[in-house]
Amino acid sequence: MERFSIKTNKEKEVVDITDKVNSLLVDLKATKGICHLFITHTTCCLTTADLDPGTDKDTLEAIEAMFPKGNYRHPHNPSHVGEHIMSSIIGPSLTIPVENSKLFLGTWQRAVLIELSGPREREIVLEFLK
Amino acid sequence: MERFSIKTNKEKEVVDITDKVNSLLVDLKATKGICHLFITHTTCCLTTADLDPGTDKDTLEAIEAMFPKGNYRHPHNPSHVGEHIMSSIIGPSLTIPVENSKLFLGTWQRAVLIELSGPREREIVLEFLK
Amino acid sequence: MERFSIKTNKEKEVVDITDKVNSLLVDLKATKGICHLFITHTTCCLTTADLDPGTDKDTLEAIEAMFPKGNYRHPHNPSHVGEHIMSSIIGPSLTIPVENSKLFLGTWQRAVLIELSGPREREIVLEFLK
Repeated sequence: MERFSIKTNKEKEVVDITDKVNSLLVDLKATKGICHLFITHTTCCLTTADLDPGTDKDTLEAIEAMFPKGNYRHPHNPSHVGEHIMSSIIGPSLTIPVENSKLFLGTWQRAVLIELSGPREREIVLEFLK
Repeated sequence: MERFSIKTNKEKEVVDITDKVNSLLVDLKATKGICHLFITHTTCCLTTADLDPGTDKDTLEAIEAMFPKGNYRHPHNPSHVGEHIMSSIIGPSLTIPVENSKLFLGTWQRAVLIELSGPREREIVLEFLK
Repeated sequence: MERFSIKTNKEKEVVDITDKVNSLLVDLKATKGICHLFITHTTCCLTTADLDPGTDKDTLEAIEAMFPKGNYRHPHNPSHVGEHIMSSIIGPSLTIPVENSKLFLGTWQRAVLIELSGPREREIVLEFLK
């Protein structure tokens, strides 16, 4: 089990973690197999995305708009309910094939952390399986 | 392949399955690796969530509100279309690192079954990888 | 790492890939373990679904309706932003138990590719773990 952290810089942000993961795969001599990533938080999540300029802001706006506004019950911070639920829907884990010590992604596809309640230090667990 | 079942008690419910999975990991002497969970149903799903008091109801209300109402075609029960689709979006599988025979989760993070068409007996398949 | 492709025939389509994956599992003599599927694209995704007649259209209409319309920034094709984001939310990977060289699914559950920007040739990577 490898652990690494990503410092996010804004309240809401799409962070490309592909290069960081690829560099860890090289360090681990993980040439060919599957890379499993898991984020140990409840207001951010992992997925893949197209990251053409502006698409990060498009994504964050759409997530904000999709989430229904209501009278939520969460005892500490009801305004965070949307962040919790969108994180649960998108999910905490991501599993990607590895070839030549690199994530095997499509041409426009990047591995991303979606921060919904930053800025914070976020921890990700990486497991390599072959 | 290990199989276990969870009895849900309401039509819609967020069920914390963390302790059940941890107890199975101990039984399996699964100390360190990855736990893969898969639910073999189409109107419930697996993810992780913050479970502060009230957040389960917040989550269920939000899922209900997010799903657009329409004239659906499903032949047996068009009113179940939302449950099917939200289950597909959230997803049937969940993969979590294991350390010391426990799911390696964040402080506020729990593994959950989201029941959208209960009460029922739901079956989950657990595979441990190392 | 096995790679296979699926030809989609419409702009938006839910394609059942279960039989194709099962036939590959037989070819690979992959009897018992976990099948990991990953799609290397950013306008389609993988999940499981109930495929009663008409539910594919229900699903596509609901995904379309859920996604908020806005003034998106994506430089090449702002109208594709919804497809990108719904693909990120549903996700590119799917992990399913295997028994007797078949995906171990529920009675009504099928492994599906959701095409949101077709028709195209889509590539999926299959890894079998045991």
